[in-house]
Amino acid sequence: MPSDRATADVRADGVPVPRPELFALCQKLAAGFAERATEHDREGTFPTQDFADLKASGMMGLMVPEACGGWGANYATYTRAAEILAKGNASTALAFNMHSVVVGALAEFELEGVPGRRAQSMLERRDWVYHEALDGRVFASASSEPEAGFRLRQLKTTYERTKDGYVINGLKSFVSMAGHADYYVVAARSEQMVGDVPGVSYFIVDRDHPQVTIKEVWDTLGMRATCSNTLILDQCFVPHDRLFLLEGVALYKLTREPHWLVGAYNGVYLGIAAAALEFTVQFLQGKAGGKFVNDPLVQHRIGELSVQLEATRSVVHDAAERVVRARSALETYAAIHRAKYMVGEIGPWLASEAIRLCGGASISKRFPLERYYRDARCGGLMPARSDDCLTYVGRAVLGVDIADPTQSYW
Amino acid sequence: MPSDRATADVRADGVPVPRPELFALCQKLAAGFAERATEHDREGTFPTQDFADLKASGMMGLMVPEACGGWGANYATYTRAAEILAKGNASTALAFNMHSVVVGALAEFELEGVPGRRAQSMLERRDWVYHEALDGRVFASASSEPEAGFRLRQLKTTYERTKDGYVINGLKSFVSMAGHADYYVVAARSEQMVGDVPGVSYFIVDRDHPQVTIKEVWDTLGMRATCSNTLILDQCFVPHDRLFLLEGVALYKLTREPHWLVGAYNGVYLGIAAAALEFTVQFLQGKAGGKFVNDPLVQHRIGELSVQLEATRSVVHDAAERVVRARSALETYAAIHRAKYMVGEIGPWLASEAIRLCGGASISKRFPLERYYRDARCGGLMPARSDDCLTYVGRAVLGVDIADPTQSYW
Amino acid sequence: MPSDRATADVRADGVPVPRPELFALCQKLAAGFAERATEHDREGTFPTQDFADLKASGMMGLMVPEACGGWGANYATYTRAAEILAKGNASTALAFNMHSVVVGALAEFELEGVPGRRAQSMLERRDWVYHEALDGRVFASASSEPEAGFRLRQLKTTYERTKDGYVINGLKSFVSMAGHADYYVVAARSEQMVGDVPGVSYFIVDRDHPQVTIKEVWDTLGMRATCSNTLILDQCFVPHDRLFLLEGVALYKLTREPHWLVGAYNGVYLGIAAAALEFTVQFLQGKAGGKFVNDPLVQHRIGELSVQLEATRSVVHDAAERVVRARSALETYAAIHRAKYMVGEIGPWLASEAIRLCGGASISKRFPLERYYRDARCGGLMPARSDDCLTYVGRAVLGVDIADPTQSYW
Amino acid sequence: MPSDRATADVRADGVPVPRPELFALCQKLAAGFAERATEHDREGTFPTQDFADLKASGMMGLMVPEACGGWGANYATYTRAAEILAKGNASTALAFNMHSVVVGALAEFELEGVPGRRAQSMLERRDWVYHEALDGRVFASASSEPEAGFRLRQLKTTYERTKDGYVINGLKSFVSMAGHADYYVVAARSEQMVGDVPGVSYFIVDRDHPQVTIKEVWDTLGMRATCSNTLILDQCFVPHDRLFLLEGVALYKLTREPHWLVGAYNGVYLGIAAAALEFTVQFLQGKAGGKFVNDPLVQHRIGELSVQLEATRSVVHDAAERVVRARSALETYAAIHRAKYMVGEIGPWLASEAIRLCGGASISKRFPLERYYRDARCGGLMPARSDDCLTYVGRAVLGVDIADPTQSYW
Repeated sequence: MPSDRATADVRADGVPVPRPELFALCQKLAAGFAERATEHDREGTFPTQDFADLKASGMMGLMVPEACGGWGANYATYTRAAEILAKGNASTALAFNMHSVVVGALAEFELEGVPGRRAQSMLERRDWVYHEALDGRVFASASSEPEAGFRLRQLKTTYERTKDGYVINGLKSFVSMAGHADYYVVAARSEQMVGDVPGVSYFIVDRDHPQVTIKEVWDTLGMRATCSNTLILDQCFVPHDRLFLLEGVALYKLTREPHWLVGAYNGVYLGIAAAALEFTVQFLQGKAGGKFVNDPLVQHRIGELSVQLEATRSVVHDAAERVVRARSALETYAAIHRAKYMVGEIGPWLASEAIRLCGGASISKRFPLERYYRDARCGGLMPARSDDCLTYVGRAVLGVDIADPTQSYW
Repeated sequence: MPSDRATADVRADGVPVPRPELFALCQKLAAGFAERATEHDREGTFPTQDFADLKASGMMGLMVPEACGGWGANYATYTRAAEILAKGNASTALAFNMHSVVVGALAEFELEGVPGRRAQSMLERRDWVYHEALDGRVFASASSEPEAGFRLRQLKTTYERTKDGYVINGLKSFVSMAGHADYYVVAARSEQMVGDVPGVSYFIVDRDHPQVTIKEVWDTLGMRATCSNTLILDQCFVPHDRLFLLEGVALYKLTREPHWLVGAYNGVYLGIAAAALEFTVQFLQGKAGGKFVNDPLVQHRIGELSVQLEATRSVVHDAAERVVRARSALETYAAIHRAKYMVGEIGPWLASEAIRLCGGASISKRFPLERYYRDARCGGLMPARSDDCLTYVGRAVLGVDIADPTQSYW
Repeated sequence: MPSDRATADVRADGVPVPRPELFALCQKLAAGFAERATEHDREGTFPTQDFADLKASGMMGLMVPEACGGWGANYATYTRAAEILAKGNASTALAFNMHSVVVGALAEFELEGVPGRRAQSMLERRDWVYHEALDGRVFASASSEPEAGFRLRQLKTTYERTKDGYVINGLKSFVSMAGHADYYVVAARSEQMVGDVPGVSYFIVDRDHPQVTIKEVWDTLGMRATCSNTLILDQCFVPHDRLFLLEGVALYKLTREPHWLVGAYNGVYLGIAAAALEFTVQFLQGKAGGKFVNDPLVQHRIGELSVQLEATRSVVHDAAERVVRARSALETYAAIHRAKYMVGEIGPWLASEAIRLCGGASISKRFPLERYYRDARCGGLMPARSDDCLTYVGRAVLGVDIADPTQSYW
Repeated sequence: MPSDRATADVRADGVPVPRPELFALCQKLAAGFAERATEHDREGTFPTQDFADLKASGMMGLMVPEACGGWGANYATYTRAAEILAKGNASTALAFNMHSVVVGALAEFELEGVPGRRAQSMLERRDWVYHEALDGRVFASASSEPEAGFRLRQLKTTYERTKDGYVINGLKSFVSMAGHADYYVVAARSEQMVGDVPGVSYFIVDRDHPQVTIKEVWDTLGMRATCSNTLILDQCFVPHDRLFLLEGVALYKLTREPHWLVGAYNGVYLGIAAAALEFTVQFLQGKAGGKFVNDPLVQHRIGELSVQLEATRSVVHDAAERVVRARSALETYAAIHRAKYMVGEIGPWLASEAIRLCGGASISKRFPLERYYRDARCGGLMPARSDDCLTYVGRAVLGVDIADPTQSYW
């Protein structure tokens, strides 16, 4: 395996330059996704073939370091890859995102300061996750709940430590790939506080665990092929080595490294908006013998859509590069939330304007534009929600301590 | 039958005040529509029971003058009724709209200046339409075409006059209720110019006419239950008495009385936006023990949605009342297009913001909000399209002659 | 004097129709204002001649009932008059507004339920105010303060009751016409609570009162000719008959009849926006041989400005007519705040877009457009501020009790 | 002189990293500008001391290559410097911009392909300009005209070649620093076409040229201290060595290297918007004991302002870095126009919202916010105007050839 696969070089400012091969592969995968997207969207079925292609091309190891046999992508590279994949099928890219967040967060975890024995066991668990990912196994995230939403502080799912491991009880909602992933990374709360916030930990649960059941409820406006169903854990026991990261520190992790759980969506939703504009341009170029290309109003409006899309892209990439350079800087936190807000709200606006421009024919299910309009509306609802992002950025600018987990929106 | 059914009184400015009974009936009908809306939306099936209810309550005669046995609604009353019906199911209200446009335009048609014999035959045709409507028969409109869109000047469907009537050839798209209406009012172009514009006429074609076939193509983002399929007329003969209105004058009619073909949508799409806000308020009132009612951000954002909705409502009603007072005034034309623009573009924005406010749970198909989001996006695509409306209003304000059919967007 | 001067007729819905004479007079006055506006704006001088003209034409008695010798305008008529005057010079119209609010609020005050002796003394004071107004004397409002802003609950200006009258101490800011009005209506707080809110009363203070001094501080972006300076009251004694309305009830009055203190600005700021669009249309019609009249982009953008202006106008008039019909209805309160928000924020946007459309030449002080841009930005800052309006409307829609003075933004 | 003054290093993607010293100097200069800005704005006087400071610190040679004794700033460095200067006084920064555009365009001019003798004479003129700039002499740009605006194709100012040089006749408007610069770079049109477009050339005219007169007309909404007056050239003779760049190619230059004439404003107007937000944050932090820092609505709205500002900043810097890497790429052209649009329209919106947030006190001339509101509105009026930018971007995206000077907005 070559010594760098996902990145080709490093800029003077420390941001590695991604390899073109990776993006070419993503484009090829996305082309296949696109062919199957309409059907999965209509039926709400899981894109099994898309995932077979992802696995076959080694993409489950995208975030696994090169030294361990993966692509070694960093967050900025991941963001670009996610955009390309989402242009094919945003549901597939979003499901893949949940897996990549798990592996990516693990790959970045720093063990300095962790006592020897715990560090050792974390290393073992990490290697195991890498191994599973490289073998094509898929990790899903089970974090939200019906009442708490994504606010970890209000989780009702609990865990208790036993002699041999942990027993988890609760109900998780919006579990993308429920029934299709190989493992669920489940967030649960213990009785104990860690510092001033509840102790929340993640545990890796097998798909076939007998104490886990899935309730099929996912029937939504958009992102229909993610199969984000409900997971019920009833006295679900996992051994010690299924603890993910360190125990109890989830709220600190979220607050101080928001790029994965908040910002990993950015590439996905940027991809939907980009696809909507690309479709619109091609549609108008092909309509009525191309006469709209020279229509002053069409030029002006396409100009406005393009400006807003490229502004969003600039902000997304700026945030991603800040993560690579200094992921714990307050300014990076703000940048991640800026980007999350922009992708979340530009998308539905852009898709709505695109339909307005393309006209009545474009709402037919023969074209993907109406799907982009539906999928795009989902971005701003995922954590951090659009208004949480604005409040967060405002607090940062006003000098409120955004790194304080007792004050966060989680 | 009482001497006034749809209106209770007349204001000093000449606008009749509608009777509360009519609106109570509409509300009752809408409640039934709402129960069946999800199913029809999902399957794209025609709301047969909704139409059975409309027929049973005499609503097919809504626009038939009281003296002739109908409700005698005017345009302003119709607009309010359409809003209420659309809150139940916008597809039903939009289909019903096509029927009401046909009857309403006929009821308003002035015969002054029409030579005696033609006036007489028009009166007979009108009475026949009234009779059919009162008997519960439904008229659909077949005007648009794949290439021309709604621009009548570019129609490819033609008619030729024969000794006994007319022979029509062509393909019409977006024919709401195709396969479900009893009659199609088909726009077709003759070889002859009328003044400086093509002569376009409307003809009433039976649903079971052997030279008419329907192609089921309607599978769209929104307004899925209108069944707006394609109609093919192949050497379709109709006798003389199936000419609708006068021959050849459609472009003049559209230019000088835009309220039916442009403005009758206003009530329907206002209803969608109103329903979206009502749902949002109730959803937030019921969520998390009602705590959002006192959330400063929620209050502020609901305030903004409400302001925009009520502004749209004011503009829609202002336009409607102008039609009743002076339907041929240039300022009325502009008012109709202002209202059409506002309902067309407020709706998708409001529904998008509503989803943002309500959060992830609200995109489930258990709730109607995601349908409002999809249906609302269709308004600005129907003639006059949102950008045509803005250009039209701008031209009016800048002093361009908007009553000149050679310059219109049709 | 004729039995109705400001109104010509009454519509069936109870809203009187204003007389065209009044509006013709306003237009004539506004033409004079316009000639002098640039100079007053540049120097920040008071429009003395404008007020001389207003006085000479009897406009100081605009709100005095006809039976008492005035024009007898209601709130809706006033709103239309204010719009016309503001098109000439918004500063003049805003200063005149403060006077009209005083007289208008008095003219509407209902004495039912007020005990006989107090009612009698109020009637005498009211007749005296009418008399002064009809004689051309001008009343100014002194309500805001540097720290409290317009929030009456936080006023630092206090009054104490003595045997013969009241002693007032404090500092009032933003007193339009300070140094130019004949009387100041000063808001002050007593030690006593009235119900659950502080007792706030208004007192009429003579311009030449020896315990009143004026500090000239008004030097602002816009509304420069209102001379809204600071007033200092130092042991300022006024006799009993200078109490305005009843003692202590100001917060109830503001909460339950917001149309004067919140909504009387609506006409003024609508006038600025309307003037900006009128100028823009004329400027573009005259530019480059009129070629912009046929420019598709110009038509489209003028269309958008016109739609937003007319929507605002519809909302302003709708609110004003609701006041006339049912000024204490909750829906009227919401309507007033909707209108206040819209005029406050449409204006700066419209003026900004107008400059963008007209281009570089239009920012010259030879043209009034740059003044409209500056004046328009002030509307949303006056009570209720734009964001207070949105929150208020949102609360109303969400079912919060907006008539409760303990919860109001005052 | 050190081998690199304006830049400290070069990133792997070829973009030099600017030296912190330059920006520290700009900040120091800006602090001085800020102290004098209010006075110059009020009186419309030229910021003579600001320019004395700029000269004293060598900033007139900012764009002169280091090898020739200047700072050697590139376009990206310039953009950042302009932003900082504009935060002090945007008028000063805009005037300085006109000088920097002249020197910067010259410094970039490539002589490859230029025949030997002409190249030699150009080199001599370039060295002379460098020398003058390093000596503190200021170059102004005289390009626009009352009828043509900035559209060079329609210029009425002409030049004729004589044996010894050129004779220029015409009237130029919006000449920033007219009466204060040392040289005017005047655009004029010859009779000859160059390719398919008029031959337009630039000539350097002395400030004291006897055939040049200045008409003081600059009295505007904003940017009041630029003294952008009118210049009249009446049989104005200049010798051959006062030709700037090559003869006749101005339209090609503008079309194919738009970054100076279109994009050099970007830093200036970004600076105004940034200053407006900084003021707002500080104002709100200091108001009412800091309580607004924790106000949910204030946080949310500041968040929105910050997101839009940072998005604009990202787009401006992205465009500037593209210029450094590949200034003749079509994508760079589009990026420049995207950035120009964004800075032009974000500014007035942001300043308007900032006033809305800060409230009534903030419109006082004691604070700079009202000046930002006025200055910001001028950006979108300068070439390329906001709507020209959108149309340009739209054309680029739709595949129209934006490098074709016969089709450009110039």
